[in-house]
Amino acid sequence: MSAISFSSVCFSRGHCWNNPKEFGKVRKQQGGKLLVKCSSKSGNPSSQNAVRVGVLGASGYTGSEVLRLLANHPQFGIALMTADRKAGQPISSVFPHLSTRDLPDLIAIKDANFSDVDAVFCCLPHGTTQEIIKGLPKHLKIVDLSADFRLRDISEYEEWYGQPHRAPDLQKEAIYGLTEVLREEIKNARLVANPGCYPTSVQLPLVPLIKASLIEIKNIIIDAKSGVSGAGRSAKENLLFTEVTEGLNSYGVTRHRHVPEIEQGLAEAAGSKVTVSFTPHLIPMSRGMQSTIYVEMAPGVRIEDLYQQLKLSYEDEEFVSVLENGVIPRTHSVKGTNYCLINVFPDRIPGRAIIISVIDNLVKGASGQALQNLNLILGFPENLGLHYLPLF
Amino acid sequence: MSAISFSSVCFSRGHCWNNPKEFGKVRKQQGGKLLVKCSSKSGNPSSQNAVRVGVLGASGYTGSEVLRLLANHPQFGIALMTADRKAGQPISSVFPHLSTRDLPDLIAIKDANFSDVDAVFCCLPHGTTQEIIKGLPKHLKIVDLSADFRLRDISEYEEWYGQPHRAPDLQKEAIYGLTEVLREEIKNARLVANPGCYPTSVQLPLVPLIKASLIEIKNIIIDAKSGVSGAGRSAKENLLFTEVTEGLNSYGVTRHRHVPEIEQGLAEAAGSKVTVSFTPHLIPMSRGMQSTIYVEMAPGVRIEDLYQQLKLSYEDEEFVSVLENGVIPRTHSVKGTNYCLINVFPDRIPGRAIIISVIDNLVKGASGQALQNLNLILGFPENLGLHYLPLF
Amino acid sequence: MSAISFSSVCFSRGHCWNNPKEFGKVRKQQGGKLLVKCSSKSGNPSSQNAVRVGVLGASGYTGSEVLRLLANHPQFGIALMTADRKAGQPISSVFPHLSTRDLPDLIAIKDANFSDVDAVFCCLPHGTTQEIIKGLPKHLKIVDLSADFRLRDISEYEEWYGQPHRAPDLQKEAIYGLTEVLREEIKNARLVANPGCYPTSVQLPLVPLIKASLIEIKNIIIDAKSGVSGAGRSAKENLLFTEVTEGLNSYGVTRHRHVPEIEQGLAEAAGSKVTVSFTPHLIPMSRGMQSTIYVEMAPGVRIEDLYQQLKLSYEDEEFVSVLENGVIPRTHSVKGTNYCLINVFPDRIPGRAIIISVIDNLVKGASGQALQNLNLILGFPENLGLHYLPLF
Amino acid sequence: MSAISFSSVCFSRGHCWNNPKEFGKVRKQQGGKLLVKCSSKSGNPSSQNAVRVGVLGASGYTGSEVLRLLANHPQFGIALMTADRKAGQPISSVFPHLSTRDLPDLIAIKDANFSDVDAVFCCLPHGTTQEIIKGLPKHLKIVDLSADFRLRDISEYEEWYGQPHRAPDLQKEAIYGLTEVLREEIKNARLVANPGCYPTSVQLPLVPLIKASLIEIKNIIIDAKSGVSGAGRSAKENLLFTEVTEGLNSYGVTRHRHVPEIEQGLAEAAGSKVTVSFTPHLIPMSRGMQSTIYVEMAPGVRIEDLYQQLKLSYEDEEFVSVLENGVIPRTHSVKGTNYCLINVFPDRIPGRAIIISVIDNLVKGASGQALQNLNLILGFPENLGLHYLPLF
Repeated sequence: MSAISFSSVCFSRGHCWNNPKEFGKVRKQQGGKLLVKCSSKSGNPSSQNAVRVGVLGASGYTGSEVLRLLANHPQFGIALMTADRKAGQPISSVFPHLSTRDLPDLIAIKDANFSDVDAVFCCLPHGTTQEIIKGLPKHLKIVDLSADFRLRDISEYEEWYGQPHRAPDLQKEAIYGLTEVLREEIKNARLVANPGCYPTSVQLPLVPLIKASLIEIKNIIIDAKSGVSGAGRSAKENLLFTEVTEGLNSYGVTRHRHVPEIEQGLAEAAGSKVTVSFTPHLIPMSRGMQSTIYVEMAPGVRIEDLYQQLKLSYEDEEFVSVLENGVIPRTHSVKGTNYCLINVFPDRIPGRAIIISVIDNLVKGASGQALQNLNLILGFPENLGLHYLPLF
Repeated sequence: MSAISFSSVCFSRGHCWNNPKEFGKVRKQQGGKLLVKCSSKSGNPSSQNAVRVGVLGASGYTGSEVLRLLANHPQFGIALMTADRKAGQPISSVFPHLSTRDLPDLIAIKDANFSDVDAVFCCLPHGTTQEIIKGLPKHLKIVDLSADFRLRDISEYEEWYGQPHRAPDLQKEAIYGLTEVLREEIKNARLVANPGCYPTSVQLPLVPLIKASLIEIKNIIIDAKSGVSGAGRSAKENLLFTEVTEGLNSYGVTRHRHVPEIEQGLAEAAGSKVTVSFTPHLIPMSRGMQSTIYVEMAPGVRIEDLYQQLKLSYEDEEFVSVLENGVIPRTHSVKGTNYCLINVFPDRIPGRAIIISVIDNLVKGASGQALQNLNLILGFPENLGLHYLPLF
Repeated sequence: MSAISFSSVCFSRGHCWNNPKEFGKVRKQQGGKLLVKCSSKSGNPSSQNAVRVGVLGASGYTGSEVLRLLANHPQFGIALMTADRKAGQPISSVFPHLSTRDLPDLIAIKDANFSDVDAVFCCLPHGTTQEIIKGLPKHLKIVDLSADFRLRDISEYEEWYGQPHRAPDLQKEAIYGLTEVLREEIKNARLVANPGCYPTSVQLPLVPLIKASLIEIKNIIIDAKSGVSGAGRSAKENLLFTEVTEGLNSYGVTRHRHVPEIEQGLAEAAGSKVTVSFTPHLIPMSRGMQSTIYVEMAPGVRIEDLYQQLKLSYEDEEFVSVLENGVIPRTHSVKGTNYCLINVFPDRIPGRAIIISVIDNLVKGASGQALQNLNLILGFPENLGLHYLPLF
Repeated sequence: MSAISFSSVCFSRGHCWNNPKEFGKVRKQQGGKLLVKCSSKSGNPSSQNAVRVGVLGASGYTGSEVLRLLANHPQFGIALMTADRKAGQPISSVFPHLSTRDLPDLIAIKDANFSDVDAVFCCLPHGTTQEIIKGLPKHLKIVDLSADFRLRDISEYEEWYGQPHRAPDLQKEAIYGLTEVLREEIKNARLVANPGCYPTSVQLPLVPLIKASLIEIKNIIIDAKSGVSGAGRSAKENLLFTEVTEGLNSYGVTRHRHVPEIEQGLAEAAGSKVTVSFTPHLIPMSRGMQSTIYVEMAPGVRIEDLYQQLKLSYEDEEFVSVLENGVIPRTHSVKGTNYCLINVFPDRIPGRAIIISVIDNLVKGASGQALQNLNLILGFPENLGLHYLPLF
């Protein structure tokens, strides 16, 4: 055996939580005010090398998921967390599952001091986000998980969200954060509009195929299935356990707000307007998302061509994986991880193909991709803190 | 108040289980040999008016569901139940939830005496059923819930089931039991091939639309979702709770055995060959099935035309219901019942429509429709014993 | 075969929904105002023999469950349904699963005309029920599913519910509706206080054992588990699917409001004060309830004595069943039914026993027992309309 | 901002998977034979500092969970994985969710070469494990997750497992791996018998209270609830989704095999024989375990004494946490993590207390504690690779 000593690798800096002896003491002295290294209970408030991250809207599911993922991030520390309606409370009162960590107490966004913060994840509701981001200091790097900056055409925003856009200048600056597709742009971004979950699961397989002109852009039919966490944490009757379990629900048939985002991305790849059929279904599970996509191949194209193109497009990607021939992607395989698994199958109807892609809606479909993007903006390897295997 | 007396309505015959005083006594004397009135613990062995029903293969899910539905049937009594591997056991050892009823013990099919039996539900596995039905006495009315007599073209059977058909003569005699479509033929049948669950959920909405030439028969895309009970009760690793819960699984992509049955029914409606795209998905719920069907409307046809045609086709039907404009069918609404709920929606892609139909895969998709068919064969109102409201 | 003709049994009266030919027509003429026979879509408004039932608070789970059970009741028809916040809506807007039945529209309770009503199920929240029942006409038979009349000692009500009792005179009149224990009293009741779900599952096994002095009344430890529907249908964050699924929650440790009701029933059996340990747990399932009860046997008593006593106490009961030796009751076995299954097991600790009882919290624990009680009050067999087998 | 450079911390050694540029290349050259750094796809076969770990029985749930946890372990690499019935297959054929990692193919245990292996996790079934561990080379550190070495008294093993112990000498050597209780012994162990899930959840709260003589050792009543993964991955009918979902099952009443292990641990703390009441319940969830424990306090002891003792016992522990006064532990809060959360509550019955403890049965109840123990044996901080926050 050749075990190295404890102190020689990542522990040399003294700020890891791994030393049980220190743990008790630190927990006792610690309030909610210090800069807390996420992956560490002991923390090291004087550490000069961690990125100081703020989480705006920490009491929802995407905010909570950002916190979970930061827990194993070696470079990001949580400087502040906001939740207006829960200001003053510890995070454990909102998410008991976070009680084992020492995290700063929740504060109101108006009380947040961003002078010691380097970057923020903005996990606020659609509609209110634009004003808030407009008011943030300019030194902050921002990854916005709402839909407020995803649509480049602000008239389209107005149409689908029923209100005028309140920060059109910021909209021009915002970069759409589909990492594998727009990596270079994201690296230089200050404000990233993190993609929606459905659009992520749809664009990752379709963009390369459309760019390569392998599929027709008419009659793209997307039958999407999502776990319930995608609907957020608001107490609505139709999201009660008894209303959801042991049943299946289509919703937003033909009018889901993710449609314009999907069509925007596909249109950009195609160089022309694209109209898709998109029907989402709520599945009795917490997490996970599958898009089953029915497409028509361009004349002369065979199923193998689609497969090879996808293989080629993603061969150097860590988080997008085209499975072996014939293997069906399963949501179980990505639960809790940042992966997107894809495969393509021949249809019984000649000339058509079926594409299946799966993601965890809260990770690659939200907080994981957001973290991937912030890594990229800040010059870190984009997979930092995202080395999770699925929890089956 | 004007309550009628206990004895004047359906209790006048003395054979109902409703008399608590009789209940205890009868339970004590009763063995497993008597003709037991399903809806009655007390039974009345000398009753001359009940139809005597046998259930072949009572230890699987469809068999068990037949038993459940018979429990409230005023005219059918259970004469015998077979389960070869469990012969000699009481049904409660196989289905503890049936322990509250006095039912005959399970026997091997070879030991069954059919001379006192009027009709059988055959709930045996595909493949073995043909031989067994071939060997049954000719006086029996038979509703077969397996796939063995569903495909009229026996070469197609051979192709999809990998073995030659062993009862081609019976195949010619068998009537396909899609009640609302083939009611008159079923009334005169001796052997009914009860439809599969997916084919039921697909044909009920599509057959009237195809017959009326309202939709194109090319590019019919069926994205189907089923509860796990559809996969039966065999102990397979991929059906374990831990493998199924909180996940989603596509399976049999392009090669599910229900495809030829669907295409047979649609081709008959169209008068020409039909090839469909069909992708089933396993949903983490016990029961319930939804088919989300994407179709192209014939030139000049509008969404209202589809809706009106379906309304018209099913206006006199009890078990097929076209919902009000805009209301999305939910599997919860049919759980435990024999209903099929349908609605039709405009697609974002001009000229296309989305049809959603839901059933309980074990009821309208199996045992309920089987009972509906036997009612019909025997001259009873077809809804007898099927007055269930859903268990949410 | 000896099938009787359709018209000769319960169909002779012409009011059953079983005639498919009539079905369509009736549905068309029917509004929401008529007296609708529950088990019938066609109904027969002029029928003079049905009991006319009102359901107060039809938009909650127990109200909905009353509606489901009435669907197969041959003697009870629904005359009116109230739901103040949903007044004017059809029931299908509240419970889509009831859309297949023609039921009267929901009305506000203040608009209800009780002159044509014989009996009501009161499914309103605790606290508000007392005033409402106080205001009802005296000719009505009432089964109240709230907790408002369960505690005979109104000071105890005040202590546990935090408000004075507003109808102490009615409290004196009310009969506690634990059917198997208080059958004779219930028969003559005008107002029945229907037991809570936990108290039902606990008292049915314990009352006979305490009456027979077979167990000690000290150190009775009840570890109870319930499906989520027991918490009702209010939109609370902690009842969201994502908060409940795949997890377990103890709640109300030592302070659950069902405690005084349990202790009241056991004290009455014992003839002296009883204090129990009671800890409820929320299980990620919609329905079902199990009480695992740990007791000390009286000196000299053996496990067989407990078993024989329970067998004897319930041998003539239809809905309470003591299982065979060694068989563990399962909630699956009672799902959707009015049964209570019980068994008793030796503990490893000498002199102690473990008792397990299961019910469906919404049926025997609420609406089913309520119907059983109304049957009893009105002189019908108490199992009328309750012949359900479990939906596994 | 003060982000440190990528190479300066744990990345200086060049063997982390974080460099996307290297990732593609390495994946292509890599077969299944190399020593793979778990937290790295790129790996670095020549690395001299990683501990080389073997996983025996990698195709079951505890084996799979060991793999998941190793994924973020900075010092342990997987040298080999065995699964006799699946030998020759890639792990992704057994656990599709592991397909995103490059891991060695499964081999038969007889073909394993242990000369380059430092330590093994033994995840094999009870009964066969003894012989296999007897045959392993003596240089290996072993953490055994089966029950084969947990009972110090081999006659007790014979009684509960129905066969004589086949390695009594090894039994004498084995150290019981309840980390927080036997840390010092574990540090020097070669063979650790990793505790069962139920015994872990019961002993952690009870051992300190018994040692401090705060509770009586008679009448300890344990009502335990477990997720289904605790039953393993064998294809049994009673573990099918349809049999488990929406229901509750007690099992092994009075005869569960974890009883002697629990009693052994409590007896050691008490210094005298202890007999407990133990009833496990299967809950429809994959993971999670709660023990609700009903105890009698010693004379004069108050609930606060229990609370303070537990607080004191675990104040320096990272993975055992006594919650704030009144807060109920929830299985959700530990899902996927190595935590045990505990709290204590007053009972209604004077002199009694209720203790609730929760763990993830597959982590602190199996693979997580196993990793904690191997960290300890090898001189690493015991929390290395275990920094997970729960996946709600």
